[in-house]
Amino acid sequence: MSMLESFGFEDIEIGQSLRLSRTVTEEMVRLFAAATGDVNPMHLDQNFAAATPFKGCIAHGMLTAGFISAAIATGLPGPGSVYVGQELRFDRPVRAGDTITVELTVQEKIPGKNHIVLKTVARNQNNKTVVSGTATVLPPPGKARVEQPAEPRFLPA
Amino acid sequence: MSMLESFGFEDIEIGQSLRLSRTVTEEMVRLFAAATGDVNPMHLDQNFAAATPFKGCIAHGMLTAGFISAAIATGLPGPGSVYVGQELRFDRPVRAGDTITVELTVQEKIPGKNHIVLKTVARNQNNKTVVSGTATVLPPPGKARVEQPAEPRFLPA
Repeated sequence: MSMLESFGFEDIEIGQSLRLSRTVTEEMVRLFAAATGDVNPMHLDQNFAAATPFKGCIAHGMLTAGFISAAIATGLPGPGSVYVGQELRFDRPVRAGDTITVELTVQEKIPGKNHIVLKTVARNQNNKTVVSGTATVLPPPGKARVEQPAEPRFLPA
Repeated sequence: MSMLESFGFEDIEIGQSLRLSRTVTEEMVRLFAAATGDVNPMHLDQNFAAATPFKGCIAHGMLTAGFISAAIATGLPGPGSVYVGQELRFDRPVRAGDTITVELTVQEKIPGKNHIVLKTVARNQNNKTVVSGTATVLPPPGKARVEQPAEPRFLPA
């Protein structure tokens, strides 16, 4: 059983960072489309996407944003965090087969509100930035260890 | 066969708007977790979530952000749009059973870059704002009609 650790506001230091890597698959893109209803042909229709400047299907930008959310929720500050806001810039396309590494770095602590501001950067396997921005998060009340829920599993219907 | 229509930069007017509604289900939350790997117990573990200020599981904020992405990609400006950036504020929790209506409104046109800025607001069935912010989008080259891809379907494994 995997455990997740969380950090409270007082435990968090400026400059503290965390990395999380995920390799994008076509199935992940299709699961994201099923979850959100985002059936943009840019992500699902190879013929349509081939005729665009991207010359082939790309992943939803919000899928990579979901990796940022995952890194916050499971790592820094970890479970119990409340996501207050996120600025995103979609710098480059992501395709199935790309390995995306999200890096979170604590940039600022806002004592009155107990918010932290994280620099959030996602890079591909060639170290090119694909998504950049900042997250504002309310960390959980203090350090804790909780069981990591199993990743739900699905099969194409 | 459903068709999707897109608007080019010249076709888009300040104040133009679009609405899209989706009812959140537990399955959508689990599909989102499977797509992104975001296994935050706040979304998947009823016991954990019951002990937090939310008093029960809530949906990933980025799932609602995905509805905004869906509204942009399938409606305004429609397929062929390039998502440049998105600012998000997670104002209130969303739970399975909530019906979320995303409203996009064209706020600004930036002629040099051909970007448009959309006000993006998601409200629940009680007309309370759950996610707010702005999107920056590069619309497709001009008006077009394309086939809407089928929503991928999955069954729990």
